[in-house]
Amino acid sequence: MLIVLQTDFGYKDPYVGVMKGVIKTINPDAEIIDLTHGVARHSILEAAFNLLVSAEYFPSGTIFVTVVDPGVGTGRRALLIQTRNYILIGPDNGVLSLLAFKDGVLKVFDISNSPYRLPKVSSTFHGRDVFAPVAAWVSKGVPLERVGTPLPSEAIAKLQIEEPYVNVEGGWFEATVLSVDVFGNISLNAGVEVVESLGIRRNDKLVVEGLNNKLECTMVNTFGDVGVGEGACYINSWGFFEIALNQGDASRMLNTRTLEKLRVIRKHV
Amino acid sequence: MLIVLQTDFGYKDPYVGVMKGVIKTINPDAEIIDLTHGVARHSILEAAFNLLVSAEYFPSGTIFVTVVDPGVGTGRRALLIQTRNYILIGPDNGVLSLLAFKDGVLKVFDISNSPYRLPKVSSTFHGRDVFAPVAAWVSKGVPLERVGTPLPSEAIAKLQIEEPYVNVEGGWFEATVLSVDVFGNISLNAGVEVVESLGIRRNDKLVVEGLNNKLECTMVNTFGDVGVGEGACYINSWGFFEIALNQGDASRMLNTRTLEKLRVIRKHV
Amino acid sequence: MLIVLQTDFGYKDPYVGVMKGVIKTINPDAEIIDLTHGVARHSILEAAFNLLVSAEYFPSGTIFVTVVDPGVGTGRRALLIQTRNYILIGPDNGVLSLLAFKDGVLKVFDISNSPYRLPKVSSTFHGRDVFAPVAAWVSKGVPLERVGTPLPSEAIAKLQIEEPYVNVEGGWFEATVLSVDVFGNISLNAGVEVVESLGIRRNDKLVVEGLNNKLECTMVNTFGDVGVGEGACYINSWGFFEIALNQGDASRMLNTRTLEKLRVIRKHV
Repeated sequence: MLIVLQTDFGYKDPYVGVMKGVIKTINPDAEIIDLTHGVARHSILEAAFNLLVSAEYFPSGTIFVTVVDPGVGTGRRALLIQTRNYILIGPDNGVLSLLAFKDGVLKVFDISNSPYRLPKVSSTFHGRDVFAPVAAWVSKGVPLERVGTPLPSEAIAKLQIEEPYVNVEGGWFEATVLSVDVFGNISLNAGVEVVESLGIRRNDKLVVEGLNNKLECTMVNTFGDVGVGEGACYINSWGFFEIALNQGDASRMLNTRTLEKLRVIRKHV
Repeated sequence: MLIVLQTDFGYKDPYVGVMKGVIKTINPDAEIIDLTHGVARHSILEAAFNLLVSAEYFPSGTIFVTVVDPGVGTGRRALLIQTRNYILIGPDNGVLSLLAFKDGVLKVFDISNSPYRLPKVSSTFHGRDVFAPVAAWVSKGVPLERVGTPLPSEAIAKLQIEEPYVNVEGGWFEATVLSVDVFGNISLNAGVEVVESLGIRRNDKLVVEGLNNKLECTMVNTFGDVGVGEGACYINSWGFFEIALNQGDASRMLNTRTLEKLRVIRKHV
Repeated sequence: MLIVLQTDFGYKDPYVGVMKGVIKTINPDAEIIDLTHGVARHSILEAAFNLLVSAEYFPSGTIFVTVVDPGVGTGRRALLIQTRNYILIGPDNGVLSLLAFKDGVLKVFDISNSPYRLPKVSSTFHGRDVFAPVAAWVSKGVPLERVGTPLPSEAIAKLQIEEPYVNVEGGWFEATVLSVDVFGNISLNAGVEVVESLGIRRNDKLVVEGLNNKLECTMVNTFGDVGVGEGACYINSWGFFEIALNQGDASRMLNTRTLEKLRVIRKHV
């Protein structure tokens, strides 16, 4: 059984390695894959987005452990969610919710006081003391009913992301920044249907407006379709509207970050 | 058999990948886990601390290879240490010593000229040429007596870390910075017994003094117990006294680093 | 079968994790090792160099997937190259060529339209949609003839790196920067034969000239042979002439980067 880890722990400290040690101590046969540990510190949306877009590329039955947990050691619950295809484990702060409700929630368990935690549970490192050991025992076949107490699916903390606002006459839409990747490419909460509803076509010129900056881009298939340093807009590999500068950093140019809104306007020629 | 790697090689270069290639060439069944490769360059204490606190979360019998090796290619020895629960492999510069003496040294071998090194040994990359192949052969079951020449345990280079100084009447203690993690959280060489000997209790206000800066913190269970940007002090998940700013960087605020000393003073109310 | 991944995707995003998910979905028995994902963005030479020097440390039969791909989604071909000892998979932009021609090209296939791609191929993420699935199917034993269409070996895009220029009377050579590692150590396209042809010996003093800076170094075995902050030159663990500052950053001091040229001059005493 595959266990996939995602955290905001970074790559300097032994935290992730120790989680793997806990898992391999409990289940020597577990296979562990890192989704990423470079999530921006405490960025619940970024981690939720990563889970949302990544899960379908993993085998059915995969156990995803996500630890982006600003509330560790306070009252927030720890969850295990069984969805149609996966097992999701992490804090109840919304980080699991985008994938859970997309894939379909089957069962929810509060594992805050799971009997499968480590014997001694710290107040600051539940990745090691709660989430890793529960994942390891589940990968060994422990029935979900025994790892926690059932909750209704309505109990899951949700992330609220506004739908894009489309103004057809004005020729523009406004949408939330879901993700900024390491290259500075920006994913908006808007897909191909928004682009089509505005009649935007290949080679159309667009203007992207942030709070205090603008960027011009051409609607293309890939960033390599525009010159070096030029703006490119396209539906990215996850199906979202993406803004990039070929070999540059669009997020720095627009001075934007996740959860902010951008307006995308079709230029009249 | 699990082989756990720790280095200060970072994540840009193929050095760590090549060490894994060497291991898998010798023992295709070896399982390899990264503790971290983000140790501050040449920081022997940071790597020694990581080993010290992490080992107990790995299965008994785990082989730990640590390469933080400013003296590579000079006269320093290469060691294999068998402790009560683990095999430790690395340079003889103190990096193995904290864990070795905590866990209990059973046998020590000088592997500088081990017959299990690669046929050609460079002067700059013993991770690849000495430590990885010896670990791989040991994981395959080669008897320790054959990988090197025995040494007395007194021969191991030691890290000297001063014990905390506690002034009960004055209501303060002074202790060495053992580690600064990626979030800027500071671990001191002091545990719960120091806190108790001073009668420090939950919600007590403390002042932490560095060379030229101060930071106020509240004694709590976890950083999430204080407001954003406020100072929190607690016994961390490894059992050490830790200083943090909730969603901030305490090490930058105090302008401190490993091996420096900090004074922690209970405020009189 | 071992699959080794190298990209310039960095460690912030889930891109590499998703490639591993694709591989494990197709071939649950595949073993995956990361060479590095910290290649400088779009640096084809850096990735080609990493492959060139690393491959010999991996088992025969290893499948190397390298994705440094500024032309993704444009007309560039996707390749699978069978060399004497390995399978190389990646874009046809030269990134595979240094290793391919060193190890010896046996067969070349254009996998741009491979039937083993994912059903839906994006314009921006061929690591996920083309290279990872083809590698996974090949690791499962699919005959190479079925994954793509054959090409002559002359069709492979090549990196051109000039040979070093050696001026024996003047006592200097000029060579291209092949790699700058995370420590700022510089590898030049020159090996022990260049050093010997100039009669450079241990403890000789050298001057390295960049475009606007100079650095003095001593010919030694390892950087630890000089004092802290001093320049060291040596034949590195891959067999190339390397310039380092002990515990410093030679590339910053010389203000240089890959593909630039440096002149190395023997000082007359």
